[in-house]
Amino acid sequence: MKLVTIDDVRSAAERIRPFVVRTPLLPARWGNPDRPLWIKPENLQPIGAFKVRGAFNAVAAVRDTAADVVAYSSGNHAQAVAYAAATFGIRAHIVMPKETPNVKVQATRDLGARVELSEAGGREMLAAEILAQTDGVLIPPFDHPDVIAGQGTIGIEIAEDLPSVRTVLVPVSGGGLASGIGTSIRALCPNAEIIGVEPELAADTAQSLREGRRVDWSIEDRNRTVADGLRSQPSELTFAHLQHVLDGMITVSESEIRSATRELIYRARLVAEPSGAVALAAYRQNATPPGQTVVVLSGGNVEPRILQEILAEPAPA
Amino acid sequence: MKLVTIDDVRSAAERIRPFVVRTPLLPARWGNPDRPLWIKPENLQPIGAFKVRGAFNAVAAVRDTAADVVAYSSGNHAQAVAYAAATFGIRAHIVMPKETPNVKVQATRDLGARVELSEAGGREMLAAEILAQTDGVLIPPFDHPDVIAGQGTIGIEIAEDLPSVRTVLVPVSGGGLASGIGTSIRALCPNAEIIGVEPELAADTAQSLREGRRVDWSIEDRNRTVADGLRSQPSELTFAHLQHVLDGMITVSESEIRSATRELIYRARLVAEPSGAVALAAYRQNATPPGQTVVVLSGGNVEPRILQEILAEPAPA
Repeated sequence: MKLVTIDDVRSAAERIRPFVVRTPLLPARWGNPDRPLWIKPENLQPIGAFKVRGAFNAVAAVRDTAADVVAYSSGNHAQAVAYAAATFGIRAHIVMPKETPNVKVQATRDLGARVELSEAGGREMLAAEILAQTDGVLIPPFDHPDVIAGQGTIGIEIAEDLPSVRTVLVPVSGGGLASGIGTSIRALCPNAEIIGVEPELAADTAQSLREGRRVDWSIEDRNRTVADGLRSQPSELTFAHLQHVLDGMITVSESEIRSATRELIYRARLVAEPSGAVALAAYRQNATPPGQTVVVLSGGNVEPRILQEILAEPAPA
Repeated sequence: MKLVTIDDVRSAAERIRPFVVRTPLLPARWGNPDRPLWIKPENLQPIGAFKVRGAFNAVAAVRDTAADVVAYSSGNHAQAVAYAAATFGIRAHIVMPKETPNVKVQATRDLGARVELSEAGGREMLAAEILAQTDGVLIPPFDHPDVIAGQGTIGIEIAEDLPSVRTVLVPVSGGGLASGIGTSIRALCPNAEIIGVEPELAADTAQSLREGRRVDWSIEDRNRTVADGLRSQPSELTFAHLQHVLDGMITVSESEIRSATRELIYRARLVAEPSGAVALAAYRQNATPPGQTVVVLSGGNVEPRILQEILAEPAPA
């Protein structure tokens, strides 16, 4: 299988530069002295998540040949594709499950997208219909080389800002983010370890990498975690990348995730969604090699109810 | 009176560069289309506030001649001076009122400072004693050219990132931040307006500028605002700067401040202390000229109780 290369990531970086935030690498002096800590705050992107990077790269690649793009997502990918398409003057059709909270539907419409609501299990079919009607192009959330290359631009920025980094901790769901960052860090910082992070309750990738083949966890199982952005599973393409670029996986408990979300609020003054806080939760286990450590904060679109709940919990000792 | 110049600010920028975060200017696409909005997130600095800029510049200026620095503050200036002193291997003595919350005392001690607790009204005297005993140097929170020049480095960065900016909104308390930013924006973006922002309940500077002389509001009056970082009043030095560099003042209500704090959490994914959110609150009044607008988010050290309260309030219509 052909994997994304550092040259693909470099091209993506050129292509998306005018449209995404060049996020700073924030020193967190409150980290463990043995593992000086930096945070890569992708919650500061437009739409609040790293997903804009892959979406802009993938939509830019078809902007001259397609008048319509199609995506199915109820999360950050929906808004990322809508935002990229609007920027390039392309129509975006976003298929969302009909139980999607109205605030997310409206946010996607506010970005100029046409939102179509699908019945349970019917989203692929509805997307296929729209693709046939419009002659549009599907922009998948992770299973595409342009999307992986776009997410990989985060790794280039980390390597520029902290070339001597020892460990990079990255959330894993569908695996696009870790595939991309892993590709660029492997190429640019060959001495660094790249560690994927999953919730214990959605640890399909940790198990899959141990067994050397993709293992399926039921969606009911994966839905148990509060980290609602980490309930997807790698595709054949992203799994091949993860096997190639990851040095290991760490799994984190629900209470570790909630604790890390609170820690980011009060110590980094950053709002993370629970999925965005798992890398810090993994860092707190002190199980990675000593040395400079970067945690990727992938996004900040937290539901108000969840955030209030987490902030009301007693601080851990 | 000799005012700080753009050359002073440029020198400060050189001096503090290794120690502060070069914060990005974040586009906020959810702003008013007539006034495209950017946020300058100084809550992302080490210790969570712009104060590190002035503190590093002022402490760096004495690092070769003094073994001790002294400051009185219960807020962000205390931690900023402690942090700068620790970086340069100088002893910091911080005088705090004895009713300062223990969490702030401990945070300052954790930065290596010696904290001395003062009786009500006794902080100047205690600081003077320490200065006499140690042969140290006092680092004031705003009433000093080096502090003003340090805060002004924010203006240089805004001018670099958005040279065509039309309006810059800056919180005003003791006036060091607005004096500094005003100095650099005046010099580098002569067509921009610089607007100071105060809580209605601590609007001494708005009144002072109208009357052309420093007017004193009682501390009891100023203590009414939730924006606890905006309860100071300009000194002769900062007031002279403000008269020279500000184009106007906007005052904001308590409910506008709380609303803006919530808006920053959910739309910018940034944690602001209420004092840090006043510039966005002023922006929301739509009273500034149309055109590109920057709001300075000055700091993010919010008390957990206040943040929880604000997030529990119903969202405004």
